[in-house]
Amino acid sequence: MKNKQVLIDSLPEGKLVENNYKLVESEMPKASSEEIIVKTISFAITAGTRAGLQGSASYAGAPTTGIVMNCTGIGEIIESNDQDYTVGRNVLTQTGWQEYSVQKKESLTLLREGIDPSLYLGPLGINGLTAYFGLLEVGQPQAGETVMISAAAGSVGHMVGQIAKIKGCKVVGVCGSDEKCKKLTEDLGFNAAVNYKDANFRQNLKDATPDGVDVYFDNTGGMILGSALFRLNSGGRIACCGVVSQYDTSTPEPGPKGIPGLLVNKSIRMQGFLVFDYADKYDDATDNLLEWINSGQLKVLKDELDGLEKAPQGFVDLLAGGNIGTRIVNI
Amino acid sequence: MKNKQVLIDSLPEGKLVENNYKLVESEMPKASSEEIIVKTISFAITAGTRAGLQGSASYAGAPTTGIVMNCTGIGEIIESNDQDYTVGRNVLTQTGWQEYSVQKKESLTLLREGIDPSLYLGPLGINGLTAYFGLLEVGQPQAGETVMISAAAGSVGHMVGQIAKIKGCKVVGVCGSDEKCKKLTEDLGFNAAVNYKDANFRQNLKDATPDGVDVYFDNTGGMILGSALFRLNSGGRIACCGVVSQYDTSTPEPGPKGIPGLLVNKSIRMQGFLVFDYADKYDDATDNLLEWINSGQLKVLKDELDGLEKAPQGFVDLLAGGNIGTRIVNI
Repeated sequence: MKNKQVLIDSLPEGKLVENNYKLVESEMPKASSEEIIVKTISFAITAGTRAGLQGSASYAGAPTTGIVMNCTGIGEIIESNDQDYTVGRNVLTQTGWQEYSVQKKESLTLLREGIDPSLYLGPLGINGLTAYFGLLEVGQPQAGETVMISAAAGSVGHMVGQIAKIKGCKVVGVCGSDEKCKKLTEDLGFNAAVNYKDANFRQNLKDATPDGVDVYFDNTGGMILGSALFRLNSGGRIACCGVVSQYDTSTPEPGPKGIPGLLVNKSIRMQGFLVFDYADKYDDATDNLLEWINSGQLKVLKDELDGLEKAPQGFVDLLAGGNIGTRIVNI
Repeated sequence: MKNKQVLIDSLPEGKLVENNYKLVESEMPKASSEEIIVKTISFAITAGTRAGLQGSASYAGAPTTGIVMNCTGIGEIIESNDQDYTVGRNVLTQTGWQEYSVQKKESLTLLREGIDPSLYLGPLGINGLTAYFGLLEVGQPQAGETVMISAAAGSVGHMVGQIAKIKGCKVVGVCGSDEKCKKLTEDLGFNAAVNYKDANFRQNLKDATPDGVDVYFDNTGGMILGSALFRLNSGGRIACCGVVSQYDTSTPEPGPKGIPGLLVNKSIRMQGFLVFDYADKYDDATDNLLEWINSGQLKVLKDELDGLEKAPQGFVDLLAGGNIGTRIVNI
């Protein structure tokens, strides 16, 4: 038996390309008596991991090559001596882009039984928790307020909008195609959606936010952040979740012109966060998210690819906006 | 009797020059039965009013010419029918750059008696309250943390640093001359001060903040903000008070490169504020500030000019960093 893996073969110069990765067959990993072997079932591809490939270190540390590409995935325990983490149990962990991984039990989250495991790559996993805490703890929207979201059809964004609707807000999504806009308004209940690739984007955004914007959930940075700043009301909040507009490049743009001037003039709070900041509240959040899923208030958008070898091109395509919802690779 | 006034004669193109202003003699203002005439004693010149002369509207509204230059000042009531605002009382108000102004009582703050009135242009006025609320409410420093301040020898900055010391913080000031640096460390108790005009500024800032920065009180924006971002610790806070590096120009720079990326990676909160946001807490703040002044913990730096006609050049010079402490014009 071999372990198929996708390695980071070279760091991207400019945009990421499929050839930055290499598919290899390695020996099956061996576990010590304290370690656990997990067979990957599927994993999520998320834009944030692109930041880890940039020249300057992200929170994930400095980029390097010759290692398995990192990601969050779900898998089944196939070898274990631990009495809690038993063979056959499903877990959430950093599987990486590979078929088998060796894990320590501290890095495994046991999935609740009786729940579709793939939900842990979406609403019950990092994406869902990011949407939940970023919106509710950082953005702190009040019923009746307007919430704007960039990359609104993405893995995090499409959940942010739905949670904001559950909380009684008006919700305006920004995304990169008319097809995505339609999905947001027709299927997910967004009040409006605006295509940022449209030449009239700024005017369309203005029209879609007649009462201004109270909370902007920012997944992109760049031009959309710049536009949002001009729509924000006094006392507005920006939840800084990601910077996808600046990941797929070796030369990130400077920040928007209105910073910090507009923040001062309008008493705006702009706050970056990592989902790990809220680790002590994961259980409560998961209960709420599950309840919303079961009641049909929170719809899950999945965008699935089959086969490990699809991951590199799937990531390149995602960075160009090719996905709707959470992109998942099934092994 | 005439009323000497300084009018905005033209809006600056590029840097502000003395000729953007014009000294005129007008008729004495007349007050209706509900209005009050105030004779200006002195007023403060503050960098923030430069933003009101820029092409894009600031919180003060769109810029215009032919009007008296705005400012906060102290004066004496010389004509009034109001039983609370009686002739002879001293008040804090928007006097403007002029000898006499007509006011409604809603825009007057009676000065507490027995207190040096000029304190109301410094620690007990807008500058002191801005320092107080910006640091304590927005920055929320904890004892032992490192607080960094830009324009640290300015009217707000020199008080922020002293309040941070009172709260048990390590304090590092950034300013534009070695003379100012010396003043901050030798007279005001700052732990360190760094001259941003020094070629080794970034390295010097690093050396001065061995434990990183927890709270950055930003009066400047621009390059110093960009440098601060790289020194901020995870969970750091930026209190955005002003953008003096970008006021005296018609072409403000874009924002720093690390925004919003660094905010995300380090869970940084960057929050703009206006002192008026905290109007309901002014009284308590004033009590605290007065106590610190009386106990000698908060020293007041004044930089005085005599004569209304000194105001225009005094403002031009202030924007170039010519002042230490609060620049006050005595009439």
